[in-house]
Amino acid sequence: MKDWSAAVDQQFEHVLSGFADVPVVHAMRYATTGGKRLRAFLVRESARVCGADVARSIWPACAIEALHAYSLVHDDLPCMDDDDLRRGQPTVHVKWDDATAVLCGDALQTLAFEMISDPLCHDDAEVRSALALSLAKASGGAGMVYGQALDIAAETAEVPLTLEQIIELQNGKTGALITWSATAGARLAGADLRTLTQYGDALGLAFQIADDILDVEGDAATLGKAAQKDADAGKATFVSLLGLDGAKRRAETLVESACDALSSYGDDANLLRATARFVVERRS
Amino acid sequence: MKDWSAAVDQQFEHVLSGFADVPVVHAMRYATTGGKRLRAFLVRESARVCGADVARSIWPACAIEALHAYSLVHDDLPCMDDDDLRRGQPTVHVKWDDATAVLCGDALQTLAFEMISDPLCHDDAEVRSALALSLAKASGGAGMVYGQALDIAAETAEVPLTLEQIIELQNGKTGALITWSATAGARLAGADLRTLTQYGDALGLAFQIADDILDVEGDAATLGKAAQKDADAGKATFVSLLGLDGAKRRAETLVESACDALSSYGDDANLLRATARFVVERRS
Repeated sequence: MKDWSAAVDQQFEHVLSGFADVPVVHAMRYATTGGKRLRAFLVRESARVCGADVARSIWPACAIEALHAYSLVHDDLPCMDDDDLRRGQPTVHVKWDDATAVLCGDALQTLAFEMISDPLCHDDAEVRSALALSLAKASGGAGMVYGQALDIAAETAEVPLTLEQIIELQNGKTGALITWSATAGARLAGADLRTLTQYGDALGLAFQIADDILDVEGDAATLGKAAQKDADAGKATFVSLLGLDGAKRRAETLVESACDALSSYGDDANLLRATARFVVERRS
Repeated sequence: MKDWSAAVDQQFEHVLSGFADVPVVHAMRYATTGGKRLRAFLVRESARVCGADVARSIWPACAIEALHAYSLVHDDLPCMDDDDLRRGQPTVHVKWDDATAVLCGDALQTLAFEMISDPLCHDDAEVRSALALSLAKASGGAGMVYGQALDIAAETAEVPLTLEQIIELQNGKTGALITWSATAGARLAGADLRTLTQYGDALGLAFQIADDILDVEGDAATLGKAAQKDADAGKATFVSLLGLDGAKRRAETLVESACDALSSYGDDANLLRATARFVVERRS
């Protein structure tokens, strides 16, 4: 995971060095530095188990990290979650300003589509175009942005969300992009998507439950961002709806289904299984 | 142009009706309603003169309008140009709020890439992928966002921009997307891009000079947005650098070169020529 993180960093450095030396590009570099690189790793490992070209999977891996970074930069804006800290560092709008953060996020989204549309990503244009279409569906007004819109609406709703509504919200907000990452390798290899979709769906939900648990149990120093934000805001979370133990049990069950879904890949998928366990055991 | 505008409206209605009934989607519909549809028309007419399927050119035509709309919604934000009025109507952040405007713009950008990656746009994935790659290059950190970043930097610069710097800024901010629109038809038809690139480059610059002239001569009621903003802000414009008459002469010369570039298409390109003239003669 460390080597792949370094490869992702290097690829961003390479791509962004082709841009002009202006603050918005500095902010793009800053926003794509660090982080767990979970999505990039899912792309790589799904590519490997499906027999796709692992070296070239750096393109969709960086694309999904750019898209994820754009969503964080915009999510941290004062008019959205208003967060000052991300990955232990000042957020983009704090380090630069709101206008630069808006443009930085905009350009990172564009960069994601640029990277998966580049012929260096894959020789077959059908694959590149399908990657772009699926990424757009997973991240737009019926995917991630839809989840974020539900999240904003929930803040002013008079009745807290139900479990079903939270699952729908999280499927959009984080689940769709995690599933996209986990299935990218199958798309690159022209393989069937079903197995990895099952894995990705279970993993995505486990990830979000683990996030809610961390929000309760973690501290800001380890998280690198504010803790207890949801509880303080009185928002319904998996923990408030299932209880702390119930949430932990649910996350465990999801990790097991994620791992079970990979049975057809045998031991070759052990790193994907380890990733699923890492997602619920992480401390930040 | 009117019929095509109606077709664009209908296509947006069709596509957006597939999204959930939430404020961010209402804002997307609002932001893609109205406007001159210049870019959509350039896509259509370039498709027609190049012999591409005109009916299916509605996909890239809507894509570029969605991308243009995203840029306006974000550009109007309080932290950017802080505009309350657009096309004679309250801007998205005024009618809803800043968070909805950020998400609305984000999802409109995504929608643009979704529409040109859809197999309904073109049977050949090479064409779809090339459309996506070129759109990303024209609109990202080396294209439109680069131009916007230069524009923001110019606001606090101690020395006004030179003519050369303004041309670079405008090439990014508006020129790249206008050229993309004018060349989209050649991409759809698999034709050579050079002629339409020349036309688009000249048209894009003429368009921006005309905008600067309108900023001086127009009034808010006709423009549907605030007038004299640049002059009031003490920004260098084509008018401040070339004088009003000089700017008008330059725009005329550019329109002539745009029209001349189309000679190989003969009379078939008369609507593209009329569009170039419309761009400098418009009142809003």
